[in-house]
Amino acid sequence: MAKKLEMPTIAVIGAGAVGSYYGAKLVQAGYPVSFYSRQAKAKGVKKLQIRSIDGDFSVKANFYDSTQLMPPSDIVVVSLKALAQIDYVSLLRPVLKDDSDIVLLQNGILGEETLHELFPGKPVHGALAFTCIERIRPGLIEHSDYGLIKMAPLEKKYIARTRRIASYLQEAGIDVKVETNLRQVRWEKLLWNIPYNCLSVVLRADTREIMADPEAVKLVQDIMQEVVRVAVRDGVKLSSKNVEEMLEKTKKMKPYRTSMLLDYLKGREIELEAILGIPVKLAGKLKVAVPKMEMLLQLLRYLDKNRERYLTG
Amino acid sequence: MAKKLEMPTIAVIGAGAVGSYYGAKLVQAGYPVSFYSRQAKAKGVKKLQIRSIDGDFSVKANFYDSTQLMPPSDIVVVSLKALAQIDYVSLLRPVLKDDSDIVLLQNGILGEETLHELFPGKPVHGALAFTCIERIRPGLIEHSDYGLIKMAPLEKKYIARTRRIASYLQEAGIDVKVETNLRQVRWEKLLWNIPYNCLSVVLRADTREIMADPEAVKLVQDIMQEVVRVAVRDGVKLSSKNVEEMLEKTKKMKPYRTSMLLDYLKGREIELEAILGIPVKLAGKLKVAVPKMEMLLQLLRYLDKNRERYLTG
Repeated sequence: MAKKLEMPTIAVIGAGAVGSYYGAKLVQAGYPVSFYSRQAKAKGVKKLQIRSIDGDFSVKANFYDSTQLMPPSDIVVVSLKALAQIDYVSLLRPVLKDDSDIVLLQNGILGEETLHELFPGKPVHGALAFTCIERIRPGLIEHSDYGLIKMAPLEKKYIARTRRIASYLQEAGIDVKVETNLRQVRWEKLLWNIPYNCLSVVLRADTREIMADPEAVKLVQDIMQEVVRVAVRDGVKLSSKNVEEMLEKTKKMKPYRTSMLLDYLKGREIELEAILGIPVKLAGKLKVAVPKMEMLLQLLRYLDKNRERYLTG
Repeated sequence: MAKKLEMPTIAVIGAGAVGSYYGAKLVQAGYPVSFYSRQAKAKGVKKLQIRSIDGDFSVKANFYDSTQLMPPSDIVVVSLKALAQIDYVSLLRPVLKDDSDIVLLQNGILGEETLHELFPGKPVHGALAFTCIERIRPGLIEHSDYGLIKMAPLEKKYIARTRRIASYLQEAGIDVKVETNLRQVRWEKLLWNIPYNCLSVVLRADTREIMADPEAVKLVQDIMQEVVRVAVRDGVKLSSKNVEEMLEKTKKMKPYRTSMLLDYLKGREIELEAILGIPVKLAGKLKVAVPKMEMLLQLLRYLDKNRERYLTG
């Protein structure tokens, strides 16, 4: 990792909504950033345009369709969609230096553990974006609400490095909060992602439509209670208070189509295993009954496989 | 009720798929049948055409748009969709004679009890159609599989009357089985209706599509197990064996779009309370946990209310 006063080089792997938005903020602040996005490269995209509630801006951006062509970087931010079939070893090895940090800016849980196994000795940090953001097309991002990133190291010994990375992000105007317990933060985000991402697809509804219906809100609450039970058994501090806070926050949110709903409606693969499959499996290991999460998974696995029929039928 | 050798007069209240199909069989056998169907009357329908795996046929049929214009009848078959807001008193009183029998040929549970309360002293019989049938339009019915009717009296003292009605139906070529325990038969049918009707809407799938997907089959099974638990607590004999039989039978069925899916796709009200709402309420009273049935109800109440958005959105 670069010394404190130097500017670290940054590789952003995956230029979806989140990678593009935060990456653009880093470019704007003057950091040398390279982006991996086969789609953006193929379309000849050369800049990132951000339409944001905090003010629109636009920056030049270097897109690559192979990480082998990218400069090895001090900080490697993995912001790909959390899909199971990604070969992280081939993908990341070319951009990793001896003392690079890996930042996993992705939904789900246990992703950092996977990267740690694949790259033993490399500091792995988790980053979770609490934001409402959509990629309209490669290079064009709509940021409609919130923006906080919570970060934590997988191994507590790397907390100082997490803080240093956070300070770089903060210098780029990004709201970052460093936490010590990664698992805690992962569960806090899943508390939102599991009910809203998943139900938005089953009900084809945005957050406002869900929150306007008492029956749907009750279901969100039931599912959140299941998430809390698994998280608590997993050693994390979550309670009904978090459930209430999350519901209140979502009620106040501008109507938001979750990333899973957008993916689904566009016929793209959804982050089902990362967001729901792995938590349900974990619940099984921890012997916590999660019938509604389980049913949600059963429904979504069906809907995911039969997307075409569902959208046109 | 008519004496044994006389031909009973029959009123069929509701000419959907089931009322039209079985009513047409009765007309064909020479019984004097009058039909209540505002829709058929409004469209000037004067006959019932049946396309059936057992052979097509067509009969003249007398449709009325008010039961007050119909002849009071010995047997009053109620084959309306099981919707909550029907005013049975105003609707049935005009066609009931002193010793009429009421036959409720409808989905759901506890419907006979309601009719018994509304018409104290009248023999009420339950009839359940185990058949694959669809009304293409008023007067035109497609019968694609099965055809059995199971009948039972609400009060056991009327079993002889149930048998007599069954014999009339049998004379009309209808496959009828008389049972003594109405609640048993109601639960047996719900064991199919709850998972398949309800999931067909959430997944927008016909029976073959559901049975082709192991995840969906597992969900059907989970829901059936919940139904069995409620039924058993309600004093009925159901077990995993019935679940297995039901799954096998459905696997062998021709691909079938349930009545609830057809209603839903046509933008019509669905029989949600009769098929799922009342059973879930009953489970609550009996203190049986039915998380998946409950979740199905929550999802469908939302989808039912937001039908338009869902179908076009």
